[in-house]
Amino acid sequence: MSELLSLKLVTIIAERVLRSRLVNEVRALGARGFTITEVSGEGSRGVRASEWEGSNIKLEVIVAGDVAQRIVDHVAATYFAWHAVIVYVQDVDVVRGRKYLGET
Amino acid sequence: MSELLSLKLVTIIAERVLRSRLVNEVRALGARGFTITEVSGEGSRGVRASEWEGSNIKLEVIVAGDVAQRIVDHVAATYFAWHAVIVYVQDVDVVRGRKYLGET
Amino acid sequence: MSELLSLKLVTIIAERVLRSRLVNEVRALGARGFTITEVSGEGSRGVRASEWEGSNIKLEVIVAGDVAQRIVDHVAATYFAWHAVIVYVQDVDVVRGRKYLGET
Repeated sequence: MSELLSLKLVTIIAERVLRSRLVNEVRALGARGFTITEVSGEGSRGVRASEWEGSNIKLEVIVAGDVAQRIVDHVAATYFAWHAVIVYVQDVDVVRGRKYLGET
Repeated sequence: MSELLSLKLVTIIAERVLRSRLVNEVRALGARGFTITEVSGEGSRGVRASEWEGSNIKLEVIVAGDVAQRIVDHVAATYFAWHAVIVYVQDVDVVRGRKYLGET
Repeated sequence: MSELLSLKLVTIIAERVLRSRLVNEVRALGARGFTITEVSGEGSRGVRASEWEGSNIKLEVIVAGDVAQRIVDHVAATYFAWHAVIVYVQDVDVVRGRKYLGET
């Protein structure tokens, strides 16, 4: 039976222009992989993010709890004042999860 | 350290034609923002939703528990009889979560 | 009030070329529906999955716990040696969840 490891799924929703910068930052903070989805939406502050599809990105990373906290703190400190960025954290059970911790 | 608030992530998967209507309805029920992703798929009743990409939408909102319940009840009562709509709820820890409750 | 049933959301992220094969396999293992999103990303083994959008797929199914375990075991045994496949499992509360168990 496959080993399942409890980790954190951190989701960041932001303007597309922040894509490269966010990817570099989450990697520097310890994420070893990421998934990006093009999305659209409207923020909770009434900031309309787009009128068309794909103008925002959803960046997802699976990381250990301490890395999740570092990412959350970094995004809040760096982007919340000026950008309509959303960040949330969920529990996930990951197959072969040790690779997300930097182990082989 | 960033404050994390426990809220609900409600995901609705529906035909694309329902997009505007669903957005208006979840806002009327208390959601203060939303994210939409174009998806494809096949429903659990064997209703093939599409043969091509992007014909369905995934509408995601982060809300308090009582709003989540209202959305779930509304979607079930309004769409389940005639549409291949899927609705599910997950726990999320959200940074700066109070804004999702309508506080500043 | 709508009945919510606790089930599992299994997410598989894989190369797009595996799409049809994975859909057939999760159905054979007991999934009664699925959602597919086009995504991009980079794997935790440093395998760059794409330089452009939409070259990977995210396949999501909602199933009972035993089906989730079968899917996880199958994907790990079949794909992990040669493909940059990611699999993770989350708890979800699903409206009208019995249809995902094959009941009407």
